[in-house]
Amino acid sequence: MTESLTLGVLGGMGPAATLDFLAKIQAYTPAKSDQDHIRVLVDINPKVPDRNTPGSLAGPVLAEMAGALRGAGADVLAIACNTAHAHADLIQRASGLPLIDMIETGATAARETGAMRAGVLGTKGALRLYREYLAAQAMGLVTLDPERQEAFMALLYRIKAGERGPAVTREMKAFADALVKMGAETIIAGCTEVPLVMGQEDTRVELVDPGELLARRCVAVCLGWETVPAAFDE
Amino acid sequence: MTESLTLGVLGGMGPAATLDFLAKIQAYTPAKSDQDHIRVLVDINPKVPDRNTPGSLAGPVLAEMAGALRGAGADVLAIACNTAHAHADLIQRASGLPLIDMIETGATAARETGAMRAGVLGTKGALRLYREYLAAQAMGLVTLDPERQEAFMALLYRIKAGERGPAVTREMKAFADALVKMGAETIIAGCTEVPLVMGQEDTRVELVDPGELLARRCVAVCLGWETVPAAFDE
Repeated sequence: MTESLTLGVLGGMGPAATLDFLAKIQAYTPAKSDQDHIRVLVDINPKVPDRNTPGSLAGPVLAEMAGALRGAGADVLAIACNTAHAHADLIQRASGLPLIDMIETGATAARETGAMRAGVLGTKGALRLYREYLAAQAMGLVTLDPERQEAFMALLYRIKAGERGPAVTREMKAFADALVKMGAETIIAGCTEVPLVMGQEDTRVELVDPGELLARRCVAVCLGWETVPAAFDE
Repeated sequence: MTESLTLGVLGGMGPAATLDFLAKIQAYTPAKSDQDHIRVLVDINPKVPDRNTPGSLAGPVLAEMAGALRGAGADVLAIACNTAHAHADLIQRASGLPLIDMIETGATAARETGAMRAGVLGTKGALRLYREYLAAQAMGLVTLDPERQEAFMALLYRIKAGERGPAVTREMKAFADALVKMGAETIIAGCTEVPLVMGQEDTRVELVDPGELLARRCVAVCLGWETVPAAFDE
């Protein structure tokens, strides 16, 4: 058996979404014993400054976390938060480690559905990232109108505070429906809190869960089934 | 708000039990936003040599993991595995960090049930640790006969391989029943895999879950409600 790579996870944004991500990694690993699993170093750091406030200082904090994960033994990184990918370059530069990119993973999967226009449920920061990645493959982005986007953010904070159940799911589903009505042919769950309350059964178009796909890719990269992404190049 | 302490978790023994432990930590934290949670640095290292094979080299690996967690910012440690506490002294000496001890936590809780004899479901290594801690508070230890102990170990490895469901629960419950029949007045779930398949409803005596109690203590220590345990003293 060849040695598998150690994954470093920048987490805690939010903490429940990180555990969901770690559970997916374990579920996607073919393991008959403890030793068959991959090693994962995780920093569940809920003290990362809010990624959604203007002038957020999240970047330097994330860069420091990434460096510490490298010091502890990580070979390759993943960030369990879409919005925090705004700092992906800084994180890679500071740590010198390759990053398995969740935005790229989600955008590629959206294209593979055959859709021309993807609706994204995410923070403003995540929408900016998806707009760029989708445009790079000639896909259009459908977003909520400003009023609904604000209501969506309020719902995210309620999920972060622990709210679950049919009412929350119904509200999330309504946002997805609104995107479909505006022409979205697929929905990207562009915030790790979205799949905590909504699944494929809640929308009639294909639902892309970048966190789930990222978990699968992390397992594949660490077990040597998929090439390690190239390290950051200035 | 005072700064909370960062918890370092030695995990991966097994990986599912570590996620269960992390979920309990989050559930016991009074949080209305991401930032209210404590920071947890976790090494989910399923490559720690099996703690149940003679001459296991787990100690040095765990000591190295503990040192790396300190380097990454941990203030206080927890080990999400009963058996690995055999190396508790080495782990504390190597890291210089205080340890919130799961065996001590479980033994103390068993005494607080009012029982004089505690039945422990655990590996041989964990039974040795519980025997010592229970004896220190004048409590007796009830263990499975050698044949049943072997069957219990086989069941643990099936749980580690992902087996769940009513059949597994029934088998675990039978081991608890055997201990009660032999005079146990409380059952200690002395292996982190036990609570993955069995709860209080499965036994008529009080079930002590050291992992759950450890999670509560970790939250209390990191939020400053409980004193940090003294660091290791040679």
